[in-house]
Amino acid sequence: MARGIRPGAPLSKIAVSKAHGEDSPYFAGWKAYDEDPYDAVSNPTGVIQMGLAENQVSFDLLEDYLEHHPETSSWGSGISSFKENALFQDYHGLQSFRKAMASFMEQIRGKRVKFDPDRMVLTAGATAANELLTFILADPGDVFLVPTPYYPGFDRDLQWRTGVKILPVHCHSSNGFQLTLASLQSAYSNAEASNFRVKGLLITNPSNPLGTAMSRSLLEEILDFVAEKNIHLISDEIYSGSVFSSPEFISVAELVETRRHETCEGIHIVYSLSKDLGLPGFRVGTIYSYNNRVVTTARRMSSFSLVSSQTQKMLASMLSDEEFTANYIRTNRERLRKRHSYIVEGLKDAGIECLKGNAGLFCWMNLTQMLEEKSMEGELRLWKMILNEVKLNVSPGSSCYCVEPGWFRVCFANMTEETLDVALRRLKVFVEKIKGRKKKMIS
Amino acid sequence: MARGIRPGAPLSKIAVSKAHGEDSPYFAGWKAYDEDPYDAVSNPTGVIQMGLAENQVSFDLLEDYLEHHPETSSWGSGISSFKENALFQDYHGLQSFRKAMASFMEQIRGKRVKFDPDRMVLTAGATAANELLTFILADPGDVFLVPTPYYPGFDRDLQWRTGVKILPVHCHSSNGFQLTLASLQSAYSNAEASNFRVKGLLITNPSNPLGTAMSRSLLEEILDFVAEKNIHLISDEIYSGSVFSSPEFISVAELVETRRHETCEGIHIVYSLSKDLGLPGFRVGTIYSYNNRVVTTARRMSSFSLVSSQTQKMLASMLSDEEFTANYIRTNRERLRKRHSYIVEGLKDAGIECLKGNAGLFCWMNLTQMLEEKSMEGELRLWKMILNEVKLNVSPGSSCYCVEPGWFRVCFANMTEETLDVALRRLKVFVEKIKGRKKKMIS
Repeated sequence: MARGIRPGAPLSKIAVSKAHGEDSPYFAGWKAYDEDPYDAVSNPTGVIQMGLAENQVSFDLLEDYLEHHPETSSWGSGISSFKENALFQDYHGLQSFRKAMASFMEQIRGKRVKFDPDRMVLTAGATAANELLTFILADPGDVFLVPTPYYPGFDRDLQWRTGVKILPVHCHSSNGFQLTLASLQSAYSNAEASNFRVKGLLITNPSNPLGTAMSRSLLEEILDFVAEKNIHLISDEIYSGSVFSSPEFISVAELVETRRHETCEGIHIVYSLSKDLGLPGFRVGTIYSYNNRVVTTARRMSSFSLVSSQTQKMLASMLSDEEFTANYIRTNRERLRKRHSYIVEGLKDAGIECLKGNAGLFCWMNLTQMLEEKSMEGELRLWKMILNEVKLNVSPGSSCYCVEPGWFRVCFANMTEETLDVALRRLKVFVEKIKGRKKKMIS
Repeated sequence: MARGIRPGAPLSKIAVSKAHGEDSPYFAGWKAYDEDPYDAVSNPTGVIQMGLAENQVSFDLLEDYLEHHPETSSWGSGISSFKENALFQDYHGLQSFRKAMASFMEQIRGKRVKFDPDRMVLTAGATAANELLTFILADPGDVFLVPTPYYPGFDRDLQWRTGVKILPVHCHSSNGFQLTLASLQSAYSNAEASNFRVKGLLITNPSNPLGTAMSRSLLEEILDFVAEKNIHLISDEIYSGSVFSSPEFISVAELVETRRHETCEGIHIVYSLSKDLGLPGFRVGTIYSYNNRVVTTARRMSSFSLVSSQTQKMLASMLSDEEFTANYIRTNRERLRKRHSYIVEGLKDAGIECLKGNAGLFCWMNLTQMLEEKSMEGELRLWKMILNEVKLNVSPGSSCYCVEPGWFRVCFANMTEETLDVALRRLKVFVEKIKGRKKKMIS
């Protein structure tokens, strides 16, 4: 029936757009690692992956729990629970799991807030949660304000399929890259002047890539700002259980409890078990909204990204054990704190300073002194040298839309201490080599 | 900061639209069941759920397998596999699982086709798979042709968030509701005349709600049609393993093997484990496309709806056991055939005819003789009587966009034979009562 060669039925604009963001150096570095992965024995000169915010420091606690509680993942005697579980596809999710998630999130926040399991919407990861909220809160062409530097995946999550635009709110090293009310106001005014309709603000608290948590006073200002402008606030708190040193983590949920309910209907929290528990493969995310219509709509929409009932069952069992979760949260924090000190000291020894951080699975590393040229091109050249010569995959700040060149995110929890040592030694040699070159050029 | 009462930040057009389709009688009937569910002992006058296409007839085979292969769902000794599995978030999916899925789909098709695991994209259920393909193949305002009667969830899956429109291709009882080339041509011409851009055709083979599979000659015509119009074809084959009597199931994949590759780049198959294996809770769907760019884009997009790695691991193990799968497919078909004969006979005994079917978990029941008025209103009145008086939740044809009033989908595999008996007895009594009334009115 085909008459000669035909071009084939065309695909959609979304399909052919680049808005998925995968061509960013952030993801390109992952591919370089995949092609030549470091192994102490079999490939000691390979690429060390420091671009992946994965938490491997506390797996033994989970493994130990599963070993001592085999009923958590098995189907029980007679497997009576298998059928019921396999058939469970209600988009409300297992009540036992929503309860356990709410309780886990309360524990992380020092039990200073209460979460209602009926406001909990489950999604297959925070990726789905953020996109789903964007679909609910904004129309194509509308704008979401997002402070920089931000997680490169937000381009995909907020923009790709929704047609919504991210308007970056640029933060600067002069105040440790903290968001300010002035920069928010200015970004909002610029958007209005360009006839964009601003529908919301997305904050990541604690911040990826900065590794810092927001102060209570800044959060108060943010809540006043979104109330005044009558826009939505998404607070992505997926690293909330990974705040490892003072000041303690303050969730937007704490502030909501002190405010009048009607001023909080625009506030939505995103959480996931991928970072704090280190379970990205299980695809467990959640939306917690103070707005009834958002809860109802998000639940309907979650049909497109439900969590496996098998996984809900296993985690409901694990997270309901409050003795286990309390110990996990405490031990994981302590281990992250140690690991963080270790890398910060190691980098210092190599002559590299980091932004002071207290959270997350990464440091925000200042290599501005090593740039040949203070520009984004200079930053990318340095990034390529670190990837191809030093064989370390770190993430350049420009991939996170940082406006100041020379900052890099370096992850520290997805490897053993021995591998981290190798990475730090390589960096030290590299820094000295660059210093040597610079001296030569000057003399 | 809030000055007086404010209306709250507005939501998106998608959020406030009714395109999610949940207000349809199809879903309303589910709610009626939830509020008053039948139980032989505790609630013998409750609603019997015959509106849910769930397969419960072969669970003992799965349970037996899991009992004899506990390693399938446990983490193994030392739980060494837990960490690796929990961290696995690659959107390619576990290779072992893609291989097992490809092999399972080949077995269902009598090994007359080969599926390449590298063309397999995993999604959290067929719901996500169909939406994802729509996002890739069509722009907002574009049209997909869908033969009626069709699964009511397609309104949500194809239209809600994508902005794409379904243009129904109406089928009629005169030829057993089979799609014809003439009706396709006519729907296409009408769409063009109304300035709609037709981007594709979605077929469900075997059909939900009809319970019939398409003939090879019809499929050949369909492939010629989409090639000639240069539009995409999505073949939703989620009931392909549930074809229980002759003629044997013909997949679009079989026809592709006999054609030139370049004429098949517009062909995409959707499958899931929710129906044939009865595992809707585990959220396992897949897209198989003959178009490289669709495969790449769908994989990227699957970030929004990944399958839990825990569930991939369990099912990879189960579906790799070809002795088990061969026995399961054969036994499940045989049981569905028996169950289908049983309900068809029972309905006949009650004076009700069904469309001749050979597939699926439901019959397409003809109650046109029982309508007081041959209209959609008449159909909905009859539906309400069946729901509220007979206490059976069946799905009215109008919820599937059937143009002829009086047809209903009735599911038979989501209950025990004893419950099915109760339902059939209730129906018989009801039919006799209606007949009595009609006689009275005539005399």
